[in-house]
Amino acid sequence: MKIVIAPDSFKGSLSAASAAEAIAKGVRRCVPDADIIEIPIADGGEGTLSSLLTATGGERVTITVSGPLGTELNASYGLLEHGSVAVIEMAEASGLCLLTDEQYNPALTTTYGTGELILDALERGCRRFLLTVGGSATNDGGTGMLQALGMRLLGPAGQQVPFGGGHLKDISVIEDSQWDSRIAESTFLIATDVQNPLIGEQGATRIFGPQKGATPQMVEHLELGMTHWADFVTAKTGVKLHDCPGAGAAGGLCGAYLAFFPASLRRGIDVVLEYTHLGDQLAGADLVITGEGRIDHQTASGKAPMGVAQLAKQHGVPVAALAGSVGAGIDALYAEGINSVHSIMNEPMTLQEAMERAPLLLEQTAEQVVRTFLAGRDAL
Amino acid sequence: MKIVIAPDSFKGSLSAASAAEAIAKGVRRCVPDADIIEIPIADGGEGTLSSLLTATGGERVTITVSGPLGTELNASYGLLEHGSVAVIEMAEASGLCLLTDEQYNPALTTTYGTGELILDALERGCRRFLLTVGGSATNDGGTGMLQALGMRLLGPAGQQVPFGGGHLKDISVIEDSQWDSRIAESTFLIATDVQNPLIGEQGATRIFGPQKGATPQMVEHLELGMTHWADFVTAKTGVKLHDCPGAGAAGGLCGAYLAFFPASLRRGIDVVLEYTHLGDQLAGADLVITGEGRIDHQTASGKAPMGVAQLAKQHGVPVAALAGSVGAGIDALYAEGINSVHSIMNEPMTLQEAMERAPLLLEQTAEQVVRTFLAGRDAL
Repeated sequence: MKIVIAPDSFKGSLSAASAAEAIAKGVRRCVPDADIIEIPIADGGEGTLSSLLTATGGERVTITVSGPLGTELNASYGLLEHGSVAVIEMAEASGLCLLTDEQYNPALTTTYGTGELILDALERGCRRFLLTVGGSATNDGGTGMLQALGMRLLGPAGQQVPFGGGHLKDISVIEDSQWDSRIAESTFLIATDVQNPLIGEQGATRIFGPQKGATPQMVEHLELGMTHWADFVTAKTGVKLHDCPGAGAAGGLCGAYLAFFPASLRRGIDVVLEYTHLGDQLAGADLVITGEGRIDHQTASGKAPMGVAQLAKQHGVPVAALAGSVGAGIDALYAEGINSVHSIMNEPMTLQEAMERAPLLLEQTAEQVVRTFLAGRDAL
Repeated sequence: MKIVIAPDSFKGSLSAASAAEAIAKGVRRCVPDADIIEIPIADGGEGTLSSLLTATGGERVTITVSGPLGTELNASYGLLEHGSVAVIEMAEASGLCLLTDEQYNPALTTTYGTGELILDALERGCRRFLLTVGGSATNDGGTGMLQALGMRLLGPAGQQVPFGGGHLKDISVIEDSQWDSRIAESTFLIATDVQNPLIGEQGATRIFGPQKGATPQMVEHLELGMTHWADFVTAKTGVKLHDCPGAGAAGGLCGAYLAFFPASLRRGIDVVLEYTHLGDQLAGADLVITGEGRIDHQTASGKAPMGVAQLAKQHGVPVAALAGSVGAGIDALYAEGINSVHSIMNEPMTLQEAMERAPLLLEQTAEQVVRTFLAGRDAL
């Protein structure tokens, strides 16, 4: 019996890799000789780098970069397919998770470190890039990242403008004579489900600014700066990011990728599925077990378990999904290839208890689900 | 697809019949045309009467009897198999559930009402009896029940002794000239898993007295009275109840049955399974779904889901068990015929929330379990 285990992380308690491990333990409890393939996945958000490295056996490269506030820190990126593909997770260098709540400040935070990660990969010869953009602390329109790669963004007095969304309004000149020419020779695939444009009511600043620490007053200031930047980008490149779907992801970092890179956008989970080669593993599989912290009607909107199920369905393999919380509206998932959804709770408990006990709960539930599956198969 | 649904009650939230109904709703959500057989069951304790009536379509007879403290109240018994079998649930007339906490007093409580139920059934022509003995408020050795059926238990002055375990020590004469002769013409099957004898450290009074309201001092007094009564019974009938396994059930009511009735003891769940004819329904079934409020290592000790599973195993039908709480040690259940155990929790919640939401949780879990079963069968 071949069982493919492809969960996302259970946020706050288990990485995707740990979740896969717990599920595998449960499967082995009832099918000791099962052919088990563990492929931790992700939906393109934070954790995608780790899942891809675990799933593919890729190499993690750690370097020193400038963090969101310019302070040096260690950040990682990944090398897949014998070093030919670099996975750049922006949150590694420029993520909200690197700051304390008090440090949140999108007027100051920069994507410069993300640019340094790309630069390092270029130096190593990588020319294919997979870019994840979830979890950003920034609202700088990707200007820091561009600066790290040689773009000069000059103020009225001819100096480089300082880091942060608060200084976008000062940009007077975009000067690209030092721009890294290897970028034009590369391909960049951006994994994101965000459809927000750069500017406006649904834009990067108004929608995501507050959760990065922007006060209402700061939002107005940042929006003015971002609009100024967007106008400059259009003048420079002809690309109008203002209304461009996806340009607002990661505080406009995605817009910079789209305007200055040979880049294309793709649904996060699809990118992950391609690079983990999940499809190849589904051949001959009897069952797929996926999972995520919560499964509900939103799961149908490009969440990892949904992507797994859609692929499994193409291969005719049934899918059981495990979750800490199972919400309303899961009926919509059945048509997408998810056969059943099971909560891992085994009795009344608090969220805190559930998170602490998650590994064992996941193991036990996986065991019982496989037991029921086998009962249907008359194999138990 | 034929699915037999045979749960026990989920104590505090769902009767066995309501549990079966909720499970059936869940099954129909994924197999609308399923051949569904609902057989609410019980383990011989409280609720057995209701389960048997629902499962068999029996008749409920309600009459006025003397309650545990002599106050008149309405109590029911059941008629099965076209009125030839009476189900007498002692808790209906003499149960702890009929009293407030302040009224608990095993020195005063009587089984008289239970005797009245038996009498009524005898009057209707019943000669086969199924006796359940769980949930008693009494420690009267069954003396009240005997009195209701014509036995005269006389004190030193020749008067009938008053109700309650506190007066057992006054019994000087057992006089059976008015004893109902129809009892000897009948058969009595006692459904109980209690193995406690009438007297001693493991006896009725010391083990069960405190939970019926006996203080430590009262326990000593009651034990003396029960010993006196046991000696008298031996002198009268030759039956020595002191060490007799099971005689201590229901405050010694079971001992009175054993000494004065043509009665035999049987495991509660086995009696229930026989009278619900579950075995007949298992022919051609694809799946059995059972359940109880809690499933853990104790389930193997004669609990209802275990009995269902053992019978299903004989018929080669797989069993999925659903529970509010799934505890440790369930591995022991697999050998007995339970294929898998699933908690009905769908997210972290309190016990209170779980009890309130039990019907929907049960429905949803049943649906998902059947979906997984069908996936195994390649039928989904």
